[in-house]
Amino acid sequence: MAEFPKVIKDVINSFERLPGIGPKGAARLAFYLLNTPRTYVKELADCLVKMKDEIKICRTCFSVSEKEVCAICSDERRDHFIICVVERAIDVMAIENMGGFKGVYHVLGGVINPLDHIGPEDLKINELVERVRKIDNMAEIILATNPTMEGEATALYIKKKLEDLKLENLKITRIGSGLPMGADLEYADQATLSRALDGRRDI
Amino acid sequence: MAEFPKVIKDVINSFERLPGIGPKGAARLAFYLLNTPRTYVKELADCLVKMKDEIKICRTCFSVSEKEVCAICSDERRDHFIICVVERAIDVMAIENMGGFKGVYHVLGGVINPLDHIGPEDLKINELVERVRKIDNMAEIILATNPTMEGEATALYIKKKLEDLKLENLKITRIGSGLPMGADLEYADQATLSRALDGRRDI
Repeated sequence: MAEFPKVIKDVINSFERLPGIGPKGAARLAFYLLNTPRTYVKELADCLVKMKDEIKICRTCFSVSEKEVCAICSDERRDHFIICVVERAIDVMAIENMGGFKGVYHVLGGVINPLDHIGPEDLKINELVERVRKIDNMAEIILATNPTMEGEATALYIKKKLEDLKLENLKITRIGSGLPMGADLEYADQATLSRALDGRRDI
Repeated sequence: MAEFPKVIKDVINSFERLPGIGPKGAARLAFYLLNTPRTYVKELADCLVKMKDEIKICRTCFSVSEKEVCAICSDERRDHFIICVVERAIDVMAIENMGGFKGVYHVLGGVINPLDHIGPEDLKINELVERVRKIDNMAEIILATNPTMEGEATALYIKKKLEDLKLENLKITRIGSGLPMGADLEYADQATLSRALDGRRDI
């Protein structure tokens, strides 16, 4: 490898640092880009830096935004009395892509994880509690952290904090978990199966 | 998705055009970059454009190079009488990473593939024949195109072209094919197994 152009090695090393891209994948990307028109490579490079420079964090929901307050938080057609609490901004995108959800969001910035030394104070939990407290008639908080150990624990922690506000009409819910669509009972793990049975509904 | 910042969508769309990166992977990369320091993103963007601007095609072997003639072709310690013929520059990197090969390379730029309308004249085959013809005492041409239908056909075509030169001492070889190291006979496909038996050697 000693004889290989350094600029190519630089690109491969940079790609390797990205999640889900190994050494072979990084090399493949680099050589693919060598064979694409310069305009596309320039476009890619420019929009990376542009994104980094222009994207801010919404001061209301802590999702990504082009302005001080994001497009969702400043949209009057959305229902500001329903807040969906998620771990990361990418989860907002997943729910928005699905369509149909008309409430607003609150991005925690992660989950409580003692092994990684992430406590409640490292997340936007106090900001959520403040936000709920300030708005009269808040209707529902949907806790949509991932159904993992940490996500469940974080949801429970937030539930407790919100209950401490003693708001009479506030509904606190957790997104449903169980078998994913198209799944096979036979191959489901025990935790998922048990959750699916617990979450059974009348039809 | 209508409410999501356009710059992020631009980055996701650009990543999606890369090989092996789907819509979810592209979104994951974009959001990962949003959470990394600006210096790293700038570095990545800069080295992409730099690579595109600085890399040339070596006029001898058609591999990637920083100069007119690549580091391997201009290295006097390499054996210039052994040429390893490969499909793409990334294959040169694979062999160089292995180490141990002391000859030089010739990059065809692809394989003969009538379905994609790629004929011998679209590849650097004539250039290879000329290169071999011009050097006295060329010892060996190793045909290292991939062991696919197209790679095999291209190797056979080049073999015939080189034989037409009627160089007495020129050895033309094909890289070995058979079971990869660590493989299991039971799971090998028939073509590989048949090739492994044909290619058996004394031990």
